[in-house]
Parts: sequence; structure tokens; C-alpha cells
Amino acid sequence: MNSTTQLALPQFESLVPPERILLGPGPSMAHPRVLEAMRQPLVGHLDPYFLEVMDQIQDMLRYVFQTSNSLTLAVSGTGTAAMETAVANMVEPGDPVLVCANGYFGLRIAEMVKCYGGILTILERPWGDVFTLDEIEHALQERRAKVVAIVQAETSTGAHQPVEGLAKLVHAQGGVLIVDAVTSLGGLPLQVDDWELDVVYSGTQKCLGCPPGLGPITLSPRAVERLHKRRTPVANWYLDLNGLEKYWGADRVYHHTAPISAFYGLHEGLRLVIEEGLALRWERHRHNADLFWQGLDRNGLECHVPVDYRLPSLTTVRIPNGVDDIQVRKRLLDEYNIEIAGGFGELKGIVWRIGLMGHSSRPENVELLLGALKEILGAD
Amino acid sequence: MNSTTQLALPQFESLVPPERILLGPGPSMAHPRVLEAMRQPLVGHLDPYFLEVMDQIQDMLRYVFQTSNSLTLAVSGTGTAAMETAVANMVEPGDPVLVCANGYFGLRIAEMVKCYGGILTILERPWGDVFTLDEIEHALQERRAKVVAIVQAETSTGAHQPVEGLAKLVHAQGGVLIVDAVTSLGGLPLQVDDWELDVVYSGTQKCLGCPPGLGPITLSPRAVERLHKRRTPVANWYLDLNGLEKYWGADRVYHHTAPISAFYGLHEGLRLVIEEGLALRWERHRHNADLFWQGLDRNGLECHVPVDYRLPSLTTVRIPNGVDDIQVRKRLLDEYNIEIAGGFGELKGIVWRIGLMGHSSRPENVELLLGALKEILGAD
Repeated sequence: MNSTTQLALPQFESLVPPERILLGPGPSMAHPRVLEAMRQPLVGHLDPYFLEVMDQIQDMLRYVFQTSNSLTLAVSGTGTAAMETAVANMVEPGDPVLVCANGYFGLRIAEMVKCYGGILTILERPWGDVFTLDEIEHALQERRAKVVAIVQAETSTGAHQPVEGLAKLVHAQGGVLIVDAVTSLGGLPLQVDDWELDVVYSGTQKCLGCPPGLGPITLSPRAVERLHKRRTPVANWYLDLNGLEKYWGADRVYHHTAPISAFYGLHEGLRLVIEEGLALRWERHRHNADLFWQGLDRNGLECHVPVDYRLPSLTTVRIPNGVDDIQVRKRLLDEYNIEIAGGFGELKGIVWRIGLMGHSSRPENVELLLGALKEILGAD
Repeated sequence: MNSTTQLALPQFESLVPPERILLGPGPSMAHPRVLEAMRQPLVGHLDPYFLEVMDQIQDMLRYVFQTSNSLTLAVSGTGTAAMETAVANMVEPGDPVLVCANGYFGLRIAEMVKCYGGILTILERPWGDVFTLDEIEHALQERRAKVVAIVQAETSTGAHQPVEGLAKLVHAQGGVLIVDAVTSLGGLPLQVDDWELDVVYSGTQKCLGCPPGLGPITLSPRAVERLHKRRTPVANWYLDLNGLEKYWGADRVYHHTAPISAFYGLHEGLRLVIEEGLALRWERHRHNADLFWQGLDRNGLECHVPVDYRLPSLTTVRIPNGVDDIQVRKRLLDEYNIEIAGGFGELKGIVWRIGLMGHSSRPENVELLLGALKEILGAD
């Protein structure tokens, strides 16, 4: 028997996490039924039972994405991995790529485009603004793009970018449109087929009410064609959709060991979306956001983003003058077990980011947060 | 309210997975305490509570890896993602790389090396063999390498590759040594510091008794220096250790949203390793493997790999002449709820792959499998 060396033996207690009310930019609170599903015993990643689970997840994801796209699956990584899947598979070295960036996640896409050798044009807007179709069309006229990427729900700013109508402009140039739906899928209108979006990805820990760890993604036939006609191999092994589609498709060729428990959780999370009905779920998110915005208004707090393009899933609230950002968030966490987040980048110290997503989007959470904020900021 | 389009509404039952006895190449059976831990309520990925969980995981991983390496963490993806993390961060375009491949996972590393622009030399051996230090030294004399990669526990063959002594050869050329410990970490001797290994990675779903989904990895100071002195950026955003070390280190800079529940599970899985004691855990794996090998011998079944370099965690059993590979596995699954796996690549149809890892490594599982195999193959 080989003995172990004399390293300090770390001994820690079993975890008893605090019961947080998660009202930040995600993770939102996982639905109890999702957590329960994740406790089920494991089966193998090629077990006929599990392959059926994967098929059902694909079917349910198609419903949530509102698409009939065959290549619809969940990447075994977080939303960031799904973002990289989109970029790595669509962008080839030398491809002209237009990224619309009005916040942190747009800029992150741009970084990834550079990572995969795309010739990058960034169309920028202040954090919190949205783009008009006209200005994107203008940018595309200045410089054609094979790939255009835009964020529907910018988690760093709370802006809701309309994406309807954009695909036509992109397709006219023979390009594909990537849409980041990390903070929108399951929480606000998203019509992948009707809007002719080519690559749309998300994460499980926002409006889907699951823990983080998986990245749903869907590709239109146009995007699949682009994938299959690449001149160069995809420069990422783990996220190469050529490999993933063989595992998720009829071939069932081993690619990696799927995170079984996370898939159980996603399966239950998607079942919950379907039970509620997608349109009613969108409506619930909108309704609770409205309640929250009205309450903010009553309390004299301002939103950073005008109501016309404000996300129901994530609200950026302007921190009142003279208020200590960090202290307020610390008190919310310590005294009320409520998590909200600060701003970052251009909005650091300027806003709080408050999410009402998935199972966190409930009137009781709105009421509690408004009350706690009023208490901490001092009632007038 | 936007209405949803007329897509078929998929309606599925909640999952009631079969209670499999997982004796394949992984996932192994997750320990019940691990699954219970994963059901705990979520906290945010930057919650002070969660940051403490991450610190504790790092400390416990250092113990399991037997290292004091500062850069020790779990990648938010499976073992394959951890493999790609090792390659993407260590290999720069144009670097000469030697990959020792005596099975599928060595070849997978080689594919990744090409993906990241390394100039690849593959030292090959038939599937099931291991390499001697001499032949690796000879290969390094023929062609210097900046990175050498080898698989300690080749899951596709059941071969146990000794890696002690190899680092000296690699370091003499100024290179770094990557060791794949996916099917060994926590199940058989692995001494990262004593053996001077530079990058070692694993998965959670093998000998650690957790579900798949995370990839533990550790980097020696030499590997960290190589990372920090790269001439080119890491060509992978999600797996860039420069970003990951800022999230896991003192800076706590947001990089991606950690899969909270999976981390809870890993925390409990590592606590179980420490409770048992690492050396005693290695011994348990070895003991149960011995029981299994003796039973195979009694039943007239042969192992593919000689006992001297046979893995305790994964045994390749030769399929007797005239026996229907797929039929036997199907009967094990359907009649006994036992999962084992077939061979692939060079060993397809030649061997079964039988894992005794983590919580699956128990005498009762050995007894059950031997009995079921005897029943199915026909007792003499």
C-alpha cells in the first residue's frame, strides 16, 4: 500500500447552505422539484433510459425555444460555454463578424470572436441602450459580415434588445445570426423559428429555474449548413457541435460523459415550463416585474433602462446618491438572506442588478425586496 | 402578451430512473450523501458562503491530488473539459508535443493537441500495453518536446501506466508533463508533488463517487509559470486558466456562473474521501479488484491486461469465444440492472470494461456481478 504524504488533512463540516432568496442576475432559486429530481440515482450516459431522457429534453427545449430545429441540445457547461459553442462553431479564422455590444456580455462575445480568429467589428452603444435595426443595417452596409451576434437580454444592463426583423438583414448577406438568450429563455418572448434566428443559446440558472451547469442551444438549418461546410475544423474539442450532434443524434457516438444529475434537473425544469405554459410563464415574469417597477416608483427609486426596452427578468435600479452600494447589498444578504448584485463595467457603483427569474419571479419576493430596501434605505 | 406558435406540446412524465448498479467505465454510483448534498438550496456563485465552499473544495482537492499546488480547482465541465483545459493552456501553436497513446484517451489528447496547434509526435503502443521510461526517453531524444502527455489510467483498456520518474526526463528538456488521472484520482496511488507532475486532471464520476460534471485539475508552479509566460493568448475562453484562477483565487473576479449544486456534491464527495482516508481508499479499490479478478479466474474468464499493470478501478475482461457481447450486456442490464460496457476502438467486441470505482467499489457488487455473469454465460 502506498502511503500518502504528510499534507495537512483538511476536515470540513457537511454543507448547510443558508436559504437565500436569489434576486440577483442568476442563479435564480431552483424549483424544489428540480432539486428533488437531481437527487435521483445515476444511470450511465449511454443507458437506453438516459438516451430517452436526452430525447425528451431535446423535445422540450424545442418547445421552449419555439423551434423545430433538429440540432437542439444542452451543452455540458454553463451559459458561457454555450456562448463559446455558438462562436467556436460559427466563426472561422478570417470571417468578418459583427458583434453588437451594449454591455458586458456583448463584449464577451467579441472577445471570443477574436479567440476564434474572426475579423471583428464591434457596434457599440452605451450600457443600457439598445440598437435599432437601422443602425445595424448601416453597419452591415459599411462592412459585410458572415456572422452577426447580439444579446437579447443583456444581464449586465437590464436592456431588452428587440431581435425580430434582424435575421433578414443578416441572411441577405449570406450570414448567420447568433442571439444570446441567457437571461430570456423561458422568461420573455423568444420565437426562434418565427424570427428566423440561427443560433440561440441560454443557461439553465436564469428563467428556467434550474441550477447552473448546462447551456441549451439550438441551430437553424442554415447554421447547421454553415457548420457542415466549414473550411477548417472547429478549434474546440469539447464544444464541437460535430461531435455533440453525433452523441445527441441517432448515432449515439460517445463524446463525453453527460452530467446526468444536471440533465435530470433540466428535464424537470422544462416539465415545469410546459405545465405552466410558455406564454403564461412570460406573462408571469412580466407581471411580477411590473409589480416591482411600480414599487420602486412608489419608493422613489429609478430604473436605469426606460420601460419600453426594460427586461422583465433583470432590472437595473439606480443607486440613490449618497447610498453605499456595498453596504446595502451586505445588509440585504446578512439581515434578510436576499441576494441582489451590483453593477459592473460602466455601471459599477451606478446600479443594482435585480433579477426576477424562474422560480424567483414571485409576488412575495417582490414584496419582500421592496420592504427590505425601504427599511435599509430609510423610509420617508 | 406574445402568443406561442403552434408547435407540438411535449408532455413527459417526471423521471423515475431505474436503480442501476453502475459497473462500467463511469459514471460510477454516486454516494447517497453526495446526492443529498446536491439537493441543498442554491446560493449565488459570488456569495461569501459559496466562496468558502470553493476554498474548502480546493483544500480537499489538494489532499486528494497529494499536492500543495496553489492552482488547484474544478473546471465547470466533465473530465473531457479538464483534459482540454490541460492542453489548451499548456500547448501553444508550434510547440512540439509528445503524446503517449496506448488507448482511446491518449489519442483524444493527441486530437486536442492538433486542435491547439501543437506539433504532434505520437508514441503508440497496442491498446492494453504500457510504456517504459526507456522508450519515452528515447522518443524525447529523437525529438524534444515542450509538453508531454500520458494517461495514468487508460479507461479504454484498463492499463495502469506508471508515471513515477517520467517528470525528470521531461523537465530535463524544459518541458511540462500532463497526466490524465480521470480514472485514477481517489482510487489508486497518485502523488502529484512527490512525482513532480505538472498538470493533472480528472473527473468527478469515477473514483470520487460524484455525478459527472466537474473536472478537477491541478498545476505545478512550473506549469503556472508556463501559463503566465505564454507568447499567445489561450485559444479557449471558457477553459482559460488565467480567467479561472482569478475567480478561484483571492481576486474573485467573475468568470462564469459555477454549477453550484455540482460543487455541493463534490464537496461532500471529497469529505467522504477524507473520512475514509486516501490510502485506505486506494486499498479498498485494490482489495475489491483482487476479489473480482480471483472470481473471474475461478469462472474461467481472462483479463486483457497482465496483473502487473492492471488498473484496480477498471478491468478489461476478454469476451469468451462464441459469446455475444451485446446480448450479455443487455441481459445484465435488463435482468440485473447492472451496467458494464463494451470495448471500443481496437478492443471493440474483444473485451468488456468493468469498473469498480468510488461507491461502486464494494464486495457486494463484485459478488453480484460474478454471479450474474456466471448465470448468463452458463455455469459449468
